[in-house]
Amino acid sequence: MTFDTIIRGGTVATASDTFSCDVGIKTGKIAALGADLGEAAEIVDATGMLVLPGGIDSHVHISQPSGPGIVMADDFASATRSAAFGGNTMVLPFAMQQKGESLREVVKDYHKKADGQCYVDVSFHLIIADASERVLGQELPALVNDGYTSFKVFMTYEGLALSDMEMLNVMTVARETGALVMVHAENYDAIRFLTDRLERAGKTETKYHGTSRPIAVEREATHRAISLAEIIDVPIMIVHVSNRQAMEEIARARRRGLKIYGETCPQYLVLTEKDMDGLNMEGAKYVCSPPPRDKESQVACWEGLQQGIFSLFSSDHCPFRYDDPQGKLNPKGRTSFRWVPNGIPGVETRLPILFSEGVGKGRISLNEFVALTATNHAKTYGLYPKKGTIAVGTDADIAIWDPNRKETISQSLMHGNTDYTPYEGIEVTGWPVSTMVRGKFVVRDGKLVGKLGGGDYVSREKSKLAVP
Amino acid sequence: MTFDTIIRGGTVATASDTFSCDVGIKTGKIAALGADLGEAAEIVDATGMLVLPGGIDSHVHISQPSGPGIVMADDFASATRSAAFGGNTMVLPFAMQQKGESLREVVKDYHKKADGQCYVDVSFHLIIADASERVLGQELPALVNDGYTSFKVFMTYEGLALSDMEMLNVMTVARETGALVMVHAENYDAIRFLTDRLERAGKTETKYHGTSRPIAVEREATHRAISLAEIIDVPIMIVHVSNRQAMEEIARARRRGLKIYGETCPQYLVLTEKDMDGLNMEGAKYVCSPPPRDKESQVACWEGLQQGIFSLFSSDHCPFRYDDPQGKLNPKGRTSFRWVPNGIPGVETRLPILFSEGVGKGRISLNEFVALTATNHAKTYGLYPKKGTIAVGTDADIAIWDPNRKETISQSLMHGNTDYTPYEGIEVTGWPVSTMVRGKFVVRDGKLVGKLGGGDYVSREKSKLAVP
Amino acid sequence: MTFDTIIRGGTVATASDTFSCDVGIKTGKIAALGADLGEAAEIVDATGMLVLPGGIDSHVHISQPSGPGIVMADDFASATRSAAFGGNTMVLPFAMQQKGESLREVVKDYHKKADGQCYVDVSFHLIIADASERVLGQELPALVNDGYTSFKVFMTYEGLALSDMEMLNVMTVARETGALVMVHAENYDAIRFLTDRLERAGKTETKYHGTSRPIAVEREATHRAISLAEIIDVPIMIVHVSNRQAMEEIARARRRGLKIYGETCPQYLVLTEKDMDGLNMEGAKYVCSPPPRDKESQVACWEGLQQGIFSLFSSDHCPFRYDDPQGKLNPKGRTSFRWVPNGIPGVETRLPILFSEGVGKGRISLNEFVALTATNHAKTYGLYPKKGTIAVGTDADIAIWDPNRKETISQSLMHGNTDYTPYEGIEVTGWPVSTMVRGKFVVRDGKLVGKLGGGDYVSREKSKLAVP
Amino acid sequence: MTFDTIIRGGTVATASDTFSCDVGIKTGKIAALGADLGEAAEIVDATGMLVLPGGIDSHVHISQPSGPGIVMADDFASATRSAAFGGNTMVLPFAMQQKGESLREVVKDYHKKADGQCYVDVSFHLIIADASERVLGQELPALVNDGYTSFKVFMTYEGLALSDMEMLNVMTVARETGALVMVHAENYDAIRFLTDRLERAGKTETKYHGTSRPIAVEREATHRAISLAEIIDVPIMIVHVSNRQAMEEIARARRRGLKIYGETCPQYLVLTEKDMDGLNMEGAKYVCSPPPRDKESQVACWEGLQQGIFSLFSSDHCPFRYDDPQGKLNPKGRTSFRWVPNGIPGVETRLPILFSEGVGKGRISLNEFVALTATNHAKTYGLYPKKGTIAVGTDADIAIWDPNRKETISQSLMHGNTDYTPYEGIEVTGWPVSTMVRGKFVVRDGKLVGKLGGGDYVSREKSKLAVP
Repeated sequence: MTFDTIIRGGTVATASDTFSCDVGIKTGKIAALGADLGEAAEIVDATGMLVLPGGIDSHVHISQPSGPGIVMADDFASATRSAAFGGNTMVLPFAMQQKGESLREVVKDYHKKADGQCYVDVSFHLIIADASERVLGQELPALVNDGYTSFKVFMTYEGLALSDMEMLNVMTVARETGALVMVHAENYDAIRFLTDRLERAGKTETKYHGTSRPIAVEREATHRAISLAEIIDVPIMIVHVSNRQAMEEIARARRRGLKIYGETCPQYLVLTEKDMDGLNMEGAKYVCSPPPRDKESQVACWEGLQQGIFSLFSSDHCPFRYDDPQGKLNPKGRTSFRWVPNGIPGVETRLPILFSEGVGKGRISLNEFVALTATNHAKTYGLYPKKGTIAVGTDADIAIWDPNRKETISQSLMHGNTDYTPYEGIEVTGWPVSTMVRGKFVVRDGKLVGKLGGGDYVSREKSKLAVP
Repeated sequence: MTFDTIIRGGTVATASDTFSCDVGIKTGKIAALGADLGEAAEIVDATGMLVLPGGIDSHVHISQPSGPGIVMADDFASATRSAAFGGNTMVLPFAMQQKGESLREVVKDYHKKADGQCYVDVSFHLIIADASERVLGQELPALVNDGYTSFKVFMTYEGLALSDMEMLNVMTVARETGALVMVHAENYDAIRFLTDRLERAGKTETKYHGTSRPIAVEREATHRAISLAEIIDVPIMIVHVSNRQAMEEIARARRRGLKIYGETCPQYLVLTEKDMDGLNMEGAKYVCSPPPRDKESQVACWEGLQQGIFSLFSSDHCPFRYDDPQGKLNPKGRTSFRWVPNGIPGVETRLPILFSEGVGKGRISLNEFVALTATNHAKTYGLYPKKGTIAVGTDADIAIWDPNRKETISQSLMHGNTDYTPYEGIEVTGWPVSTMVRGKFVVRDGKLVGKLGGGDYVSREKSKLAVP
Repeated sequence: MTFDTIIRGGTVATASDTFSCDVGIKTGKIAALGADLGEAAEIVDATGMLVLPGGIDSHVHISQPSGPGIVMADDFASATRSAAFGGNTMVLPFAMQQKGESLREVVKDYHKKADGQCYVDVSFHLIIADASERVLGQELPALVNDGYTSFKVFMTYEGLALSDMEMLNVMTVARETGALVMVHAENYDAIRFLTDRLERAGKTETKYHGTSRPIAVEREATHRAISLAEIIDVPIMIVHVSNRQAMEEIARARRRGLKIYGETCPQYLVLTEKDMDGLNMEGAKYVCSPPPRDKESQVACWEGLQQGIFSLFSSDHCPFRYDDPQGKLNPKGRTSFRWVPNGIPGVETRLPILFSEGVGKGRISLNEFVALTATNHAKTYGLYPKKGTIAVGTDADIAIWDPNRKETISQSLMHGNTDYTPYEGIEVTGWPVSTMVRGKFVVRDGKLVGKLGGGDYVSREKSKLAVP
Repeated sequence: MTFDTIIRGGTVATASDTFSCDVGIKTGKIAALGADLGEAAEIVDATGMLVLPGGIDSHVHISQPSGPGIVMADDFASATRSAAFGGNTMVLPFAMQQKGESLREVVKDYHKKADGQCYVDVSFHLIIADASERVLGQELPALVNDGYTSFKVFMTYEGLALSDMEMLNVMTVARETGALVMVHAENYDAIRFLTDRLERAGKTETKYHGTSRPIAVEREATHRAISLAEIIDVPIMIVHVSNRQAMEEIARARRRGLKIYGETCPQYLVLTEKDMDGLNMEGAKYVCSPPPRDKESQVACWEGLQQGIFSLFSSDHCPFRYDDPQGKLNPKGRTSFRWVPNGIPGVETRLPILFSEGVGKGRISLNEFVALTATNHAKTYGLYPKKGTIAVGTDADIAIWDPNRKETISQSLMHGNTDYTPYEGIEVTGWPVSTMVRGKFVVRDGKLVGKLGGGDYVSREKSKLAVP
């Protein structure tokens, strides 16, 4: 057997196993794992390094319409470059429909934005904002058939929030087509009610963003989404869970035998509501939804990762520049938290934070890290076994990590288009030094070596979770 | 001390105590309790009898608009007559607003219907169907001030269902005025979705009424109502809870320190979904919402009564004639369960059923019976200490029970205007033989002796539950 | 009707009702309650006062053997005097068997100690230390028959701890005789293990008393006692519950349908483990078992009282003098927490603390106060309806409270034989000013007017809880 | 690279991944996994077959003293032969101490029994029956150091049951040495109490075995073991969990953050208490402890496997012949269930049952099957990464399965020394056709080809679970 590339002497980890071996790569795929695979065109020395499945970030927002006058900081080029530096080999952004739009057209447009602009592989979830009969009856089944096998619904946000009836109809399509529904679970009316009340009381600083979306708002919508899924008998993924109460809804449902899955994100492990209480709008840097909570919620989210209540750890990368009239500090945003764009960057920092705080501090094992950041994403979103592990026959999507390298997270280390990182100053041990997509390095020893357009669009199978 | 009437030699029970004594009545009030109170104008021999606070049925529907072509079976005369025969001295029906109506006008109209037409005392809850700014901002606070200190909101039913935003606004008024909100908790969209789906599948028999409103539909709305109440920080009463899961939501909330209260009804103790599966529309006799569930749900509801999760036991008397084109068998109702009027009669049978199945079978104590059927209603709805117990100074609202009398519940024993009872054939031990309102017999030894108009309208104080 | 005494113009409260009326007393019993009862030999003006059922403290230790060289501070005279000043009209101490003793003889001896020495009424629980066949097969059933209808078992303490087998045998007798078993639930082995380990580490200060009996030790034994009761199918009372975890075991069992009851005490509402961390052995003043826990445990115990998980609130009065070689500061006690006598005084302070912290601060209602301090004790221990409420026919056991009187709890206010109170310095609003047993004042307006021996021994019926 | 053996063309599964590849074996270890590994001395065609890590059965009893006159059916030769036919490459029996014995001597004796007598690899857990200071202070730490890194304690059984104090002492040694404690959790006293009571009532048939050990008995001991482990702060493995309540104790502990693990067995998935109700002592075939429960318990145990509450699935193989005076039908056993040897055979049927009922029926994935039957055992008991997976560098312990082969389980298919199988008649799809230990076939295409003594004793590392 001959190989294009051999990664030699590293420690390979999958979602269940850790072992030392060479990794032989041929035509972009892993062709062999062996104690000593001999020679190849290129030998990569990975002595002392971890050889991990490349991260899959299944929850990122790129080039997404964000309201009048607001522009998302990252396009596909910058977002996927940032992802690659963060140890990722694939991202799954959202093709977002707006009221009245054809979902098919939205997908086409989104392909246009991505084509030739990616450093790592991509695939798209769909966001259903207009649950009309035409969209649900015709477009959506056809799109699922074409490999867009997951869609997200929102229970809040002007122009996006679906009614319970629309949720039931979307879930019915998911059940019939085998697609997976992702749910942003917050109660829209309650948020508007509280926001109005806060504004009437003159409480408009960014710190009130958290007050306007208390835990009960998230817990309520989580339970409602679960109940609707129970009625339709369809699995769902509750994304970006921020606290124990919402998590407990997922666990309760699971104990009742329902297929309810959960995702959490770095902001719920290392940030708190207090971060939004900054002087001079500094708090705007941390405004995202659901908002970061408190220390106890962080503990809860770790437990959710440890106990398998959360099977996914994603970034919810949703990048806006801070000091920018089209970003966090837009003119209206300066008048009230209500107008500060929701979302924070994170595609580049997701993995180092979880590695250092999780594996490094003994909270999760290396194998759990791999599962939470790559394998489970692939299985959840129809990419497995093509993606998400290191095994014979899978794409050679690999991140090489120096487990001992210490870094302090800082905007100066970042490679996206935002002008800040909410994780500034966090010290981590362990860093992804090289990233390889389908056998080709995108980042090597900390330098960008991949070419723009090296990342492909990947059509997806049905989710393993949606199989009865 | 002299008395107008002495009830002699009976066993008196309150929500906590049971003791033998005379009850001395003067000008309509209980003036003394004593071992031997001497003589009076009238001596009522209660030897071997129980002397209990008259039942208060805080959840009945009388003369309420019920949709085109449908007429509620009972007016105030027949409903309160039926109530008196069932051992009740007071009922609380609903003054129901319809979209666009002035709440004040609704109340006036309802007074007109009731004035001079009652055998027992009455007071009105308000149903808020139109949560406009005018209604909430002006009419409602004024009405609370005038003694209408409780209102009900619906989360389902065409024309009645409030949005979450409207619920939040109503609860805000409740918090500001000290009124108590009652909630009918079922998810409207889910019921419509399931009903549509059943009808498309040709499943229109009455037995599908239950299928169209599964437990998850009730549990979801219960949790949502609780969450909204948690956000506003206001106590609420979840009415007519039918099953363990919804009950558990109340218990969970209580464990979190919230003031969430619950009510259950006879139909959830002795009927099941199977009763709706009758030939030739017989099932229509049992159609009510939430629907009766299964045996396990009955067990759960008993536990809820025993453990204090339910503090109220009401009838949800909502009477329609069965064999009547304006009732259950209206022309549309014959085509689909969707058009069968929701509701069953029960104001006359509530107490004997709970007494026999509860006290008689050792599930609850006599004192718990009194609490669940009278005292807690009075405390919950601002009638205490004027009503709801046997104590010096309270209204002499008294039911005299023969604890050993055996009866088989049958339509022939009933005194309302419906043409059937859903509890036909149930054998009970214990029967209310006489009912006295403010010292005057309405029913004596099984005969109507009260005069029409003997029952008064009672203005209410704030609920004890709503006091911080 | 004529009366010996009329208490005029007060506000009477029972476990469910509150009303203004005169209380007419004749031959030691309540003969009438009325708006105006006329004249009597003695008229007691209770204007502005609360007229409550006298407190029943069903968990006190008097003149009990306490190990070599240790003497309990109170005999019947001092304990019942102290009780009377604390608003109590009855106490239930323990007749404690020691290994090898005849239970019947123990009871006789205990009667001797009590005869003619009581200011308030008394009745005895039995402590079973020697669960031999003779004791269980012959003595115990006969004693239950004679009115000693409750017994306590210990799961810890040298010489007292019963094995699981012995617990099962005792519970079997309880089931057969209808007696009620009280359980002191702490794991003996674990306490010895931890105590040994602490002593080996030189950790002998009083503050380690808490460390030697962590919450898990109490939770474990609580669950075990419940499981054994479940196997025998017999109700039990878990006494002196100190924290949420043990409480939750009771609540779980209740939700499974078991008849498991709970009691908590003042020390778990207002003391914490930190109180045991005093200089120079000051901490010894607070050493009792289970030990006071933390603030969160206090919150939990309040919730237990509010939610009915605890139906009894007792003092666990177990008095030792502090500065006394036969008390807390005995020579061995100075060397290690292990030898500090377990127990604190509290019979006189139980009611003012619960009244002020509970009723006064809105945590419980006045009626719940009555239930928790009197009525439930009477019902639980076979004294109802003779004792425990204010109703026609019950013993005239009454405490008259000034609800507005402010006091600071202090040893100088106490009337027992201990030389300190663990509640020193606590400010309370509401104070029992007079106490009347069977119609005769024992304390009147803060002065002792009763005579020694005025308190009677009361033989008891079976517990209402033990009735199937 | 050259190989001794290549398994070609099969589908390899690990605890997380499934992929098609060749497996290259060299000197007993897996040297490479590759798409096409070329040639080797021996090529094994695995087309259409599953290539799985060999089963590790970490809970089997072999040649263990079983009371006077009773002889365990299997010695090492027959047990390991049976294991190999069942797809296993390693078993972990118990070296059982009896009161007064030296643990070191017990281990030596056990080695003697095993040496040269094994077809598959073995390692020993220790059973601590005599928790004396010498054993715990000296022998046990030395043995842990020598690779006996797990021990089991019993909370029931004459001569085996440890007191809570002994449990605490054993757990302390485990904490200090990093060993893992396995717990047989049933309340000894309660079982004796119930057994005595049943016998006194003449209820001695085998069906009363279940009655003598109700679920509460197991739940109690489970919670107690967990509480003791919580006090010492040490992880434990609760073995052979049979029902939801005991399982829920584990889940509760896990939610509190404790490291409590669980195991279940085939008998709790496919047998019920009714199986013990056979005519003419047939029920004796199913007598084991804890006893099989009911259908709901089976559902619960499946949920435990699915939700990760149980990380191990073992056989608890404990073989006695049925029709044998030294087995189930010993003379005393015929007189009462009390004397029927506890235990059933199962080492050969464990894997086919779980594969067919679990993977085949969609309850668990193939990867979960591998985790539950091999990988988790290796990680739990210090054998990983030497054993338990298919990865480069691990021992070539492999089972080749025909996933489509249908068999009906029958004694005629078994290869141990018992004369019956409790799983007679169960139809399964999927069967292990070949088993290879360290690169050498023991069973090949259903025929024994390994030689006696081919199995080695394996010294173990510390458990991964016991690492802080």
